[in-house]
Amino acid sequence: MASLVPYPPPPGIDKYLPSPQRTGEFFLTLTYATSLDSHLSIPLTQVPLSGPEAKSLTHHLRTFHDAILIGVGTAIVDDPGLNSRLPGTPMTRQPRPVILDPTFRWKITWESRVVQTAKRGEGLAPYVFVQSEVGEGDERKEILEEVGGKVVVIETLGKQRWSWHVLSEKMKVLGLNSVMVEGGGGVINDLLAEGNLPLVDSVIVTITPTYLGQGGVNVSPSAVLSAADGKRILAVNFKDVEWRVLGRDVVMLARPDL
Amino acid sequence: MASLVPYPPPPGIDKYLPSPQRTGEFFLTLTYATSLDSHLSIPLTQVPLSGPEAKSLTHHLRTFHDAILIGVGTAIVDDPGLNSRLPGTPMTRQPRPVILDPTFRWKITWESRVVQTAKRGEGLAPYVFVQSEVGEGDERKEILEEVGGKVVVIETLGKQRWSWHVLSEKMKVLGLNSVMVEGGGGVINDLLAEGNLPLVDSVIVTITPTYLGQGGVNVSPSAVLSAADGKRILAVNFKDVEWRVLGRDVVMLARPDL
Repeated sequence: MASLVPYPPPPGIDKYLPSPQRTGEFFLTLTYATSLDSHLSIPLTQVPLSGPEAKSLTHHLRTFHDAILIGVGTAIVDDPGLNSRLPGTPMTRQPRPVILDPTFRWKITWESRVVQTAKRGEGLAPYVFVQSEVGEGDERKEILEEVGGKVVVIETLGKQRWSWHVLSEKMKVLGLNSVMVEGGGGVINDLLAEGNLPLVDSVIVTITPTYLGQGGVNVSPSAVLSAADGKRILAVNFKDVEWRVLGRDVVMLARPDL
Repeated sequence: MASLVPYPPPPGIDKYLPSPQRTGEFFLTLTYATSLDSHLSIPLTQVPLSGPEAKSLTHHLRTFHDAILIGVGTAIVDDPGLNSRLPGTPMTRQPRPVILDPTFRWKITWESRVVQTAKRGEGLAPYVFVQSEVGEGDERKEILEEVGGKVVVIETLGKQRWSWHVLSEKMKVLGLNSVMVEGGGGVINDLLAEGNLPLVDSVIVTITPTYLGQGGVNVSPSAVLSAADGKRILAVNFKDVEWRVLGRDVVMLARPDL
């Protein structure tokens, strides 16, 4: 686990983050890093993407949210810690890891990094969102509960898909009023899709100056057609766009323009 | 034809452009604008991409090159002027339009914008690169020659593909020692491919803060495998990377890191 570089947060980033004064509304930040060809990664390969400054930014952003959310695919592939490793982060600023795992296929063990992190008191234990009750004898549930996490059953729309509206309501019930969604590609493209975009408050994208090449895990939402003439229009437009150079990378700060 | 916004060129851009002191070496600048999902456009649809400042940048860059080169698909779809419309550009700084059109399918007429532009003395007439002799009675050849352009026959590698090495040698013979390659997707991805990348001196990419959505004309080179273990590696890495904010867009200035 590499340590983080000293990090002055980009100026003006606060206005893209949940405000401490919010009164009950839900706040969703979508954040990820891509190559110039909008790939998050190459399947089955570890290639370097964003630089150390962008990684520090991620850990900084995590401290402003009640939760960080990822899809189970990312949990399996990356075995992430899902805490903020920014030096001096108090436990009160650690986000709750939420893993979307409708069929509960994540093989959690005592060795899983997020479990180890919680056990060492360096982060909160994960909540795993599933679509139906988990058997009592399932050791993974016991591991989760022992470190302070849990399995949360949420009704899906069928076909292992949730409504983001239902998810956000459930998170509020759990005391998680702000969430930073970090990936993977399926989750990101789903939130950038026409119907879900109104739930997204901020989008923070790091672009790294490389091409991964065809066949990567791609961020590109479904095509959107004009209601007037059926022709294709921009799938997502943004407002309040600001760019920050961060090491070799560039970061877009923006809000969806609905 | 919208007029260009007043335009201070981004500082430090000169070092990514052909130097006036060059002695005979060929210089190739690859430049284009994409959405966040690395799309150049949506087929059959006009969607706004980069902003007015980025458009001015393109016209500024054109004055530093002996030629601008595009594929025939772009010539057909966009009917471009292929000159610099930056106010006050002298004819000595206008680039020579080069269109790659192996099978000569471009329907040039007196109404074609590039022909009109040349006729009005606002730009140079195009050279159309084809793979075999054009019949004497072909009116398109006459139109080209009447405004000062021509058809240039160049041997292909077969299958309507040229070697970029052969193309650059041919351009040098024609007195075109620097070229700005502007598109479309096929041409760009071909130059970003492993074997051709050494011919690229500079890459200038404008990124506009929108997602066009799936099914656009995509910039993403072919996958590259490691010679050592056959695993995928970065397809293209860059060095000397600098970013410039230009209106709502951001521009990457870089050189391929071979």
